[in-house]
Amino acid sequence: MLTFQEIILRLQRYWETQGALIWQPWSEKVGAGTNNPATVLRVLGPEPWNVGYVEPSFRPDDGRYGDNPNRMQMHTQFQVILKPDPGDPQERYLQSLEALGIRREEHDIRFVEDNWESPALGMWGLGWEVWLDGQEITQYTYFQQAGGKNLDVPSVEITYGLERIAMYLQRVSSVWELQWDAHHTYGEILLRQEIDYCRYEFELADIDRQQRLFELFEAEAQVCLEAGLVVPALDYIIRCSHAFNLLDTRGAVGVTERAVFFRRMRALSRQLAAAYLQQREEEDFPWLGRRGLVETPRTEGTPMHLPLRELRATASALPEAGRAPLLFEIGVEELPASHLSLALTQLREQVSLSLRELRLDHGPVQIWGTPRRLTVYVEKLALRQADEERVVKGPPARVAFKDGEPTRAAQGFARSQGVAVENLRVEEVDGGEYVVAKVHQEGRPAAELLAEYLPGWIEGVRFPRSMRWNETGVAFSRPIRWLVALLDEAVISMTYAGVQSGRVTRGPRPAGSPDIALSGADDYKSTLESYGVLVDAQVRQEVIRFQAETLAASVAGQIPADPELLEEVANLVEVPTALLGSFSEAYLELPQEALIAVMKKHQRYFPVVDGEGRMLPYFIAVRNGGREHLDRVREGNEAVLRARYADAAYFYRQDRQRSLADFVPELRKLTFQEELGSMLDKTRRLEALAPWLGLKLGLAPLDLDLLRRAAHLSKADLATEMVVEMTSLQGVMGREYARLSGEPEAVAVALLEQYLPRSAGDTLPASPVGTALALADRLDSLAGLFAVGLQPTGSSDPYGLRRAAAAVVQILVEHELSFSVGEGLQEAGRLLPVSPSAEALRAAEDFIQGRLHVALREEGFAHDVVEAVLTERGDDPYLAQRSVERLAAWVAREDWATLLDNYARCVRITRDQPRLDFDPEALVEPAEQALHAQWLAQGPITPESSVDELLEAIVALVPAIQRFFEEVLVMAEEPELRQARLALLQRIAWLPQGIADLSQMEGF
Amino acid sequence: MLTFQEIILRLQRYWETQGALIWQPWSEKVGAGTNNPATVLRVLGPEPWNVGYVEPSFRPDDGRYGDNPNRMQMHTQFQVILKPDPGDPQERYLQSLEALGIRREEHDIRFVEDNWESPALGMWGLGWEVWLDGQEITQYTYFQQAGGKNLDVPSVEITYGLERIAMYLQRVSSVWELQWDAHHTYGEILLRQEIDYCRYEFELADIDRQQRLFELFEAEAQVCLEAGLVVPALDYIIRCSHAFNLLDTRGAVGVTERAVFFRRMRALSRQLAAAYLQQREEEDFPWLGRRGLVETPRTEGTPMHLPLRELRATASALPEAGRAPLLFEIGVEELPASHLSLALTQLREQVSLSLRELRLDHGPVQIWGTPRRLTVYVEKLALRQADEERVVKGPPARVAFKDGEPTRAAQGFARSQGVAVENLRVEEVDGGEYVVAKVHQEGRPAAELLAEYLPGWIEGVRFPRSMRWNETGVAFSRPIRWLVALLDEAVISMTYAGVQSGRVTRGPRPAGSPDIALSGADDYKSTLESYGVLVDAQVRQEVIRFQAETLAASVAGQIPADPELLEEVANLVEVPTALLGSFSEAYLELPQEALIAVMKKHQRYFPVVDGEGRMLPYFIAVRNGGREHLDRVREGNEAVLRARYADAAYFYRQDRQRSLADFVPELRKLTFQEELGSMLDKTRRLEALAPWLGLKLGLAPLDLDLLRRAAHLSKADLATEMVVEMTSLQGVMGREYARLSGEPEAVAVALLEQYLPRSAGDTLPASPVGTALALADRLDSLAGLFAVGLQPTGSSDPYGLRRAAAAVVQILVEHELSFSVGEGLQEAGRLLPVSPSAEALRAAEDFIQGRLHVALREEGFAHDVVEAVLTERGDDPYLAQRSVERLAAWVAREDWATLLDNYARCVRITRDQPRLDFDPEALVEPAEQALHAQWLAQGPITPESSVDELLEAIVALVPAIQRFFEEVLVMAEEPELRQARLALLQRIAWLPQGIADLSQMEGF
Repeated sequence: MLTFQEIILRLQRYWETQGALIWQPWSEKVGAGTNNPATVLRVLGPEPWNVGYVEPSFRPDDGRYGDNPNRMQMHTQFQVILKPDPGDPQERYLQSLEALGIRREEHDIRFVEDNWESPALGMWGLGWEVWLDGQEITQYTYFQQAGGKNLDVPSVEITYGLERIAMYLQRVSSVWELQWDAHHTYGEILLRQEIDYCRYEFELADIDRQQRLFELFEAEAQVCLEAGLVVPALDYIIRCSHAFNLLDTRGAVGVTERAVFFRRMRALSRQLAAAYLQQREEEDFPWLGRRGLVETPRTEGTPMHLPLRELRATASALPEAGRAPLLFEIGVEELPASHLSLALTQLREQVSLSLRELRLDHGPVQIWGTPRRLTVYVEKLALRQADEERVVKGPPARVAFKDGEPTRAAQGFARSQGVAVENLRVEEVDGGEYVVAKVHQEGRPAAELLAEYLPGWIEGVRFPRSMRWNETGVAFSRPIRWLVALLDEAVISMTYAGVQSGRVTRGPRPAGSPDIALSGADDYKSTLESYGVLVDAQVRQEVIRFQAETLAASVAGQIPADPELLEEVANLVEVPTALLGSFSEAYLELPQEALIAVMKKHQRYFPVVDGEGRMLPYFIAVRNGGREHLDRVREGNEAVLRARYADAAYFYRQDRQRSLADFVPELRKLTFQEELGSMLDKTRRLEALAPWLGLKLGLAPLDLDLLRRAAHLSKADLATEMVVEMTSLQGVMGREYARLSGEPEAVAVALLEQYLPRSAGDTLPASPVGTALALADRLDSLAGLFAVGLQPTGSSDPYGLRRAAAAVVQILVEHELSFSVGEGLQEAGRLLPVSPSAEALRAAEDFIQGRLHVALREEGFAHDVVEAVLTERGDDPYLAQRSVERLAAWVAREDWATLLDNYARCVRITRDQPRLDFDPEALVEPAEQALHAQWLAQGPITPESSVDELLEAIVALVPAIQRFFEEVLVMAEEPELRQARLALLQRIAWLPQGIADLSQMEGF
Repeated sequence: MLTFQEIILRLQRYWETQGALIWQPWSEKVGAGTNNPATVLRVLGPEPWNVGYVEPSFRPDDGRYGDNPNRMQMHTQFQVILKPDPGDPQERYLQSLEALGIRREEHDIRFVEDNWESPALGMWGLGWEVWLDGQEITQYTYFQQAGGKNLDVPSVEITYGLERIAMYLQRVSSVWELQWDAHHTYGEILLRQEIDYCRYEFELADIDRQQRLFELFEAEAQVCLEAGLVVPALDYIIRCSHAFNLLDTRGAVGVTERAVFFRRMRALSRQLAAAYLQQREEEDFPWLGRRGLVETPRTEGTPMHLPLRELRATASALPEAGRAPLLFEIGVEELPASHLSLALTQLREQVSLSLRELRLDHGPVQIWGTPRRLTVYVEKLALRQADEERVVKGPPARVAFKDGEPTRAAQGFARSQGVAVENLRVEEVDGGEYVVAKVHQEGRPAAELLAEYLPGWIEGVRFPRSMRWNETGVAFSRPIRWLVALLDEAVISMTYAGVQSGRVTRGPRPAGSPDIALSGADDYKSTLESYGVLVDAQVRQEVIRFQAETLAASVAGQIPADPELLEEVANLVEVPTALLGSFSEAYLELPQEALIAVMKKHQRYFPVVDGEGRMLPYFIAVRNGGREHLDRVREGNEAVLRARYADAAYFYRQDRQRSLADFVPELRKLTFQEELGSMLDKTRRLEALAPWLGLKLGLAPLDLDLLRRAAHLSKADLATEMVVEMTSLQGVMGREYARLSGEPEAVAVALLEQYLPRSAGDTLPASPVGTALALADRLDSLAGLFAVGLQPTGSSDPYGLRRAAAAVVQILVEHELSFSVGEGLQEAGRLLPVSPSAEALRAAEDFIQGRLHVALREEGFAHDVVEAVLTERGDDPYLAQRSVERLAAWVAREDWATLLDNYARCVRITRDQPRLDFDPEALVEPAEQALHAQWLAQGPITPESSVDELLEAIVALVPAIQRFFEEVLVMAEEPELRQARLALLQRIAWLPQGIADLSQMEGF
């Protein structure tokens, strides 16, 4: 059995033989090996750097008083940095696991997207967490930025979680049972220390002193930075970070304070990076050109799958005509699940388009993909491009021919187009006479074209976030490691991102990713299938669904439909094999949402439910690989879930020791925003704002009482451990704990509903109490954050105000609640601890109206219709929505143009007039009297009238208006008469006020 | 070549295979691996613990801006703890060096006394620094106390200095040139960081902020300790310690502040130790009985030196009579040089005494010793104890015999003494008649007696500081590892400290300490000589002296006589081989005292000088071992000295950039004592006190000017780097820098002389200026520290006030300066920033008088004489000394008793009288008139009179006094007459006032 220390010794030795420098843990309380100068500094700049070291890492917040099988405030990392990318970093990593006796064929080893970001360090990267039978054992990242600087030479960061690996190797279910050496367990060495640290960090660390420490550390860091002292500055930045972590663990950091802390730390980190780079630059980057790692070249010459017949290996050997299949495989390191789907969609569109442009006839286009490959398979591709006839316009005829003879211009043109002068013809183009040439373009061989165009196919795939990994600077979702481009049996030679195409693909990871030489394009799918790889994502989904349902049925359970999860899971494996795992029924006492949240979010397991949708103590995991050693893989996954649930149960137990209301006073410690006070302050505001809003919305008195209580409890769950740990459970836990605390059901429900809709497409609050609370919460945030100048700017919206505003709009519209957003903001503003300026509240209102505008436009309403209504009714989203719908209906009517035209005449002629008194007695002409009569005949049109009432009135006026303008000269000479006429038209022009500004309509 | 990282990997592996737990560096800036909980905590309590780990160790003060070949503020330790002592820890250590390719036979590997103490941790231990060819590469300690607690199970601590070992192995002369791995040097990785840290630590660390940090850390540590949280508390204690180190490096910690800081840290450390022990006790010391290290039993069965003939192996085989040599060898781990000398002296006395007591006749007793063995060799020891006749007193004769017949009492007595009743006799004893028995005690075999008594020989050797190392709890200078006890060829079987005696001794370290079975006692010396071991310390001294002188002569140099150094060096080796090394002449520009101080203090080298006593660029080192690989050993020693001198040169260069006077303002940063202010404040006081004192001592005006300047500069060198580094150079550097700064020579000399005498037997200040300054400095310290209550208590004298007071006395006496110490203290007190109480100054005066008392008693003066004089003249040491001498002379006179007796009669009869007026006219008797006349005949005796004047006067009065008492009845009835008589006697009784209180004389 490998002891814990033996694991360390072996990893050190393994990486040492790889050529890495072996370094030591840093002399500070770091949160991760990343903070060690061997990473945070050395990844900067162009110099090579390969290093491995142990790093005991302290994350106070993860402490569980030793009560959790693998969650501790201190865990031990083994950190490896490879810079530059050696080309095969994953393989080297997997070999390091083999040095520990972890054979890939006996386990489910997966690379699951997990990007990494440290705002405090101004550092981020893309990569994975590596799963060993469901357990995260390693974090694997390609750094993209550090200290706020883009990294021209990205580094590979491999961070082993040593305890978890050891638990695996020693087959124990708790970290405390690990053997450290032959004589001591991990628990014997560290458990007491762990408990003591937890007591200190959660209960005793003095908040005031830690804040002072943070400031002193920051000041010393600044001193160092000003003098260009790099590592001493780093020490203090790390100390700042640890002091911040303690404050956070003590619950003393609110949302905004957090942002402020991060800003301060990031500022230091940026200066740090600059200072380090300056030092290295002054020394002329002395390590440039030095390369540390031992080379282990990939042998393209050892195909595992031998060709059966002699190959037409090069494109020149292809026949000149006919058709053949095309295979283009982009071999990558594991793509994120969502990226895979995105790439398949884009490739599908792009390949068809590209082939059309290239005039290459073809049969069906198949787009396949697994986490490690994106594949285009085109059946029956024409080996030669279709010929093309084209007419090219030359010089004007009069220039080209003098006296019927071709001039020099004509001759030049003919030559340039490769046609004989005799074949030039004169045609009329755009109303002039021109010489034209009919050009025949002969098709080129498909292989030639593809060699040129295939790189574009890769380049054309765009990802929400892509990365660079080597010196080519090419960006892609994840590194490209091989390319297969076969037309029939011939390799189409091309290069991308430093990778040369060939005929060698790779088998799946469990088989050791063997090189597989393909004899031809049509060999691809079946060859990979022989390794268990299902390249078609749809097929994988079907297989997984079938396997999962079969397994669930074996315990009389079902899998709730969850297409997103299914797609994600299918995108995480090449060789899918589902397995049924179980967990202790004891955990079923936890809220089902929490159980499912944990299972899906962290593990991508399918929950298993009974006929009533109640959870059963099972789960379905899908492994990448066959059925070999499946029991071990199951055990592993069960152990992981057990630990996760132990964690959740721990929090749940802690939280339940008090009633939900007991948490309210603790909100004092959670800052909402520095100037806007704590979450408790926000609660106090909601306690006033919500009932006011409830009254406005017409809630019944009893509901108002419930609303008051809900407002009081609204944020309480933020102080519970469960929510502190899994923010996504805010509201969910509020409802749960409210129920457990004996609160009225309506209150409990409102606590969840206040956060609805959580995203576009989410459900809305249904209850009146929940609805009112949801609105109050958002109005408070909007008024408050605008008041203190924290409105969203550009793409930055740290407080999610866009979503808040959209939710206000959506709730009001969907629930058909007529409500003045402006008034609501005023009231919210009145309750704030700061006095908001009128402009700030106005800006907030405009911002909400902006979301309404977007929503209406997305519904397909025309710009002018939306603008016309919002100008008058933007303050009341529901009313605006209804009005837009009606106005749009009117615009669609045949008589709309007439209506608008006639109304417009009334407006235009009076536009420059002051507001005139109207004396109907002064009217003399019948036409004008008729118009007056018709105007009077309308019911009164007020700002409260509907669009229909308005436009019915106007449409009724149209004949009279037409007659008026035909028969009456408005600008009469007698002033009284002129005024009466203008005043009458003014009255008509004014009709839409408060309803819709028709002057904004197209055609006005 | 072993890279730096390979050395670490090999040490980890070596200790792992030994059975130690492999641990990681601690996550704080520790000063040493000792601070790691794996040491500072685990050495407490009874549980076994064996561990090895790397520890990057930060000591800001050691920083040299990367300018020194092996002195850095950060160096890398490899720390090993073995608990309990495995019995052969040194051997295991030497094997670990072999795992690194360091073969003991090719080097000079030495264990040189170096005890260790961390006042901050309340921790100390005894042990060695291990020298590899003169370079300290390891610190090797047996911990005796930690957290203020005695360690019942002492731990062995082995601390490798990895950089120094690596420099050796890679044969580079600067740490920065080390290869860390195949691609990077140590300097490439760490030099820039080192420079940056130095800049921060020496120049930029903010003093105020660091002080606040210390306080915050301390407060948090206290919080943790109150809650019994051990490791979190330790973190804060370490942080306190690092903050203190920074303050110290910034020159912000004075002598007293340092003591206060240490007190605070020690208080925390004690609580920490108690808290840890409580935790372990609560858990019932779960590791008790667990033993980690792999056993490597010492094979007594493999003697290297085979016996030549059949041995009389056991004592019972010895003949009954005759004589034979006795060999008793105590095999130890390397004794401190001074302990070795002490032990030899004690053994010499003790063995002779013991043999006499045992009635064992013997020839010459040889006492030999090397660092690893203490040997008693007795020639011609009688194999049998001499018989003894003894008279034993029994019951009184009248009880023993009734009617001439022996009673039961007599019979019982006879039986108890083993004699026949008939043989009892009656004798007069102490004036009574008793029965006595003449008992014949037969001698026992010497072997039997020795088996009983040899342990006592070991036990009887006392050391100033001894240690415990194993579970027997036996204390000795260093661990006892083997015992040889041979009488002739027979082993005398005994056990001490768990070691069983035998016939197997061990060869010297360079030969691998082979087991050597001795055929007999007389075999010992020659056998060891055959291995090069010279067991006779005197012989070694002679050999070394001869070798050294010969080598010095080879470069036309000499070795200044230095018996202490010679003795020490001889005590550090068993197999002495001197070698001549050289250093760069460039270093000769450094002050010679500094060069010699460095050489002797750190390296125990002999300096080489020319005929005029000027240093030559050579040194003599003495290696333990033969001439093999001597060049390598020389190179090593040269490299060490080079580094030491580079260090000194660095400081010297730094210091010389300014004049000495420039350092005066910096004294502001050095605290003398919290309440007494900085060293600058002290300087200001000396600037006032010294001239006042100079005036009192009668200095010439010009000297007073020089004195003023000297006082101004007196402490300036304390702020220079050289003195900060080597405190022993205070004054020396002051003189040096004063000369370089162009100060008058008298001033320069005074700067050194102020510290004289540095110890008992040291030279005194010679110049008037130096003398006055030396006195002023001490008076200021004494007045000040007594004023703030910091007088010495018990054995604690942290400020060295006993030495200061003794110096005052010695200077005044030797320079024959009459001076009132009380007045001096008054003046010093007047200048203090605090107002001293009268009692405090009185106490200081008494304290100085106490030293005077001790000094006089040590000169052999009788107690009464000293007391009599000091009572009257203790305030003026010189006067007191002179008076004591004279009084002692008088006491020796024949007429002293008469003199004293007669004077005493005068005193006694008037003792209870008030002070009476004297009317000579009232006297009537001739005897009394004669006495009066004789009294008048004396010259006036005043408090300023000498002892001789006084006693001459009294002796002249004696006849008159005698006559007076014979003829006169003092207590006459008439009051006037009685008063006149008493008054006259009072006048005589008062004569010695201010000179000597004769009433304290013996016989008074």
